[in-house]
Amino acid sequence: MSKTIDFKADTAGVTNPKGFCAAAAHSDIRGKQDGRLDTGLIYSKTPCSAAGVFTKNAVKAAPVIDCQRILDTGNSIHGIIVNSGNANACTGKQGTADSLEMLKFAESSTGSPENSFLVCSTGRIGDLLPMNRLKPKIEEVGEAAKRGAKEGIEFASSILTSDTKTKTATATFDLEGKTVTIGGAAKGAGMIQPNMATMLAFLTTDIQATPEALKRALTSVVNRTFNAITVDGDMSTNDTVLLLANGESEVELDGESEALFEEALFEVCDCLADKIVADGERITKVVELLISGAANDQDAENVSRAIGNSLLVKTSWYGSDPNWGRLMDALGYADAKIDQHVIDISYDDTPALIGGDPVPGNKPLWKEIVSRRRFSIRINLHQGNGAFRLRSTDLTEGYVNFNKSE
Amino acid sequence: MSKTIDFKADTAGVTNPKGFCAAAAHSDIRGKQDGRLDTGLIYSKTPCSAAGVFTKNAVKAAPVIDCQRILDTGNSIHGIIVNSGNANACTGKQGTADSLEMLKFAESSTGSPENSFLVCSTGRIGDLLPMNRLKPKIEEVGEAAKRGAKEGIEFASSILTSDTKTKTATATFDLEGKTVTIGGAAKGAGMIQPNMATMLAFLTTDIQATPEALKRALTSVVNRTFNAITVDGDMSTNDTVLLLANGESEVELDGESEALFEEALFEVCDCLADKIVADGERITKVVELLISGAANDQDAENVSRAIGNSLLVKTSWYGSDPNWGRLMDALGYADAKIDQHVIDISYDDTPALIGGDPVPGNKPLWKEIVSRRRFSIRINLHQGNGAFRLRSTDLTEGYVNFNKSE
Repeated sequence: MSKTIDFKADTAGVTNPKGFCAAAAHSDIRGKQDGRLDTGLIYSKTPCSAAGVFTKNAVKAAPVIDCQRILDTGNSIHGIIVNSGNANACTGKQGTADSLEMLKFAESSTGSPENSFLVCSTGRIGDLLPMNRLKPKIEEVGEAAKRGAKEGIEFASSILTSDTKTKTATATFDLEGKTVTIGGAAKGAGMIQPNMATMLAFLTTDIQATPEALKRALTSVVNRTFNAITVDGDMSTNDTVLLLANGESEVELDGESEALFEEALFEVCDCLADKIVADGERITKVVELLISGAANDQDAENVSRAIGNSLLVKTSWYGSDPNWGRLMDALGYADAKIDQHVIDISYDDTPALIGGDPVPGNKPLWKEIVSRRRFSIRINLHQGNGAFRLRSTDLTEGYVNFNKSE
Repeated sequence: MSKTIDFKADTAGVTNPKGFCAAAAHSDIRGKQDGRLDTGLIYSKTPCSAAGVFTKNAVKAAPVIDCQRILDTGNSIHGIIVNSGNANACTGKQGTADSLEMLKFAESSTGSPENSFLVCSTGRIGDLLPMNRLKPKIEEVGEAAKRGAKEGIEFASSILTSDTKTKTATATFDLEGKTVTIGGAAKGAGMIQPNMATMLAFLTTDIQATPEALKRALTSVVNRTFNAITVDGDMSTNDTVLLLANGESEVELDGESEALFEEALFEVCDCLADKIVADGERITKVVELLISGAANDQDAENVSRAIGNSLLVKTSWYGSDPNWGRLMDALGYADAKIDQHVIDISYDDTPALIGGDPVPGNKPLWKEIVSRRRFSIRINLHQGNGAFRLRSTDLTEGYVNFNKSE
């Protein structure tokens, strides 16, 4: 590709594209009076096209249902209201009413029409939101964003739960003398697995696009990024990725710009997905699983998830133990076409198994590789051309201790 | 049922039915010279009908492949040779040769014909067996069993890996003035999940039966017992349940005795399965998941496994945290028909959720129940008549520490 993409991690993120504002506040949703930011709002005065990708969990939080309903109307969107500390999931009729009220307060405080906002919540399941504390703060962040607040970093902070770091990224590219920007902020940490466990990602761009074109690009990118990471195999009730495009760059998303836009969007999402997995709850290692030679891509994905979610595999990584026997065991119970006698496994580029036969002479090398904070495992199944890349983590005593009560 | 079954746990197990002998020895398979029993043999001079149920893992250990091959011949069986400390899995051509040699030594030392023994191995994957140390000990246990050794307890001890306790059980019932006995020994501890993770169970009986009738009874019972437990969700390369019947009770397995025999077999297997889950690696709690009202039994099983293998659910049990939100999250991503608005959940008999609405007033009661070493969770999905019972465990820091290297 001749056009180049300029990419930066750890930027203001969502407020970088033209015309996007954001603000954040402390509503004390956790009831700890610790001043922690827990309420964020993104706003574009220029109406946006929007697309979303959501959890496939059959148990969906109220805000997820609202987002899907509003996107289905095809309305123009002006912004997103988000809270952390409470997922508003499994909260019954009151939860549904609370989600709608969050939307109404966000819309009225920014002077936006009805059904022009989206809403997300993340945090503990099963508790009602403290709406009396939340509502005045939604008004505060709405008014601030309408006045032009550029609190991209604060917004990225307000959406965190057990994350230890904010996660933002920005990509830009030039076309016809105009600059297109994509900004993003995400949160992750626990319940991270297929189909975007407790994971929220907010993407803004000033490209001009139809909702359909946005959805196409977003789905393609999410499948290779946010849906290709796992920390603990738990898929949450609230996972949401939203993309807003307000068109202020005056560049259109069409045949000419499509590949470049998708590549830039990939850069942003891949960086955010990597930050999520690397900030997994109490992990010490990030392991990239590169599965190839599967009968098809689905088989490769099944193998990668069986390995990446195996407790015995993950604990052996934690112990820096190159226990490829556990890899073989896990891939053997994946739903995939397997012939144990032709499999190649290597740690980074050092073979552990060739054609199903161990290469024990390399053991000191594997041991050294598995001791690193990041390494890859390449597995060729020799059944076809299917491939998948999954980023996973180890499983530590710290994870268990951290999650034993919430 | 008018006939009664006499059941006892922690007995001699496999040597209780008439005509069954067993012996055990130390081959130093682990190379630690610690005197630990690691080689066991079961022998019946009277030829037996036999049936087996095996791991569904596509990566199968050499002894699993041998057992399946020998059972397929329909030959009469005289015994089983077992080693612990090494799974003889992923060991290539040498592993296949070693498994055959174990069989030959067991057969020749007991004076039994070719292809009349079965073989099992359990332990670490990927290492070759120390055949020079193992072979003389197979001869030793074979000769001892042929002389009539009744080392049922020692046999039960010789098959253990990370188990902390031997696991045996015996059931008897009378029919037509004759007594039928079923004895069993099992090992479990890690890689315990669907379809019999690193789990071996050996069942002997003096009933007279065809291999087909045995297989029918065994499959029905295994699905409700050994295949309905999970510790860590990992299915091993070596799981095997074997049942030998030598006919010495002179009672035939037929229309009259079938129900009684299956009930007695269930008692033995259910007890051994419970012992396996309760001896899970470094667990502190056993949780019985009773799923009902599913669209069908498979849905109920899928829901039970999603919950019973969720890291977030298992860690919350460890912390005595009645976090039903995590139960809802896990059942939501199970492959099952779910309507979150009609679900009932209770801890033992105390409701937590009725028709999808929380019953927060009961919180102190849930907390007390979840603090116990054993409790049940009942979930009614209100979608049909499907049901499944799965026994699971918590996930502890001790498990992670124990498995971080092997």
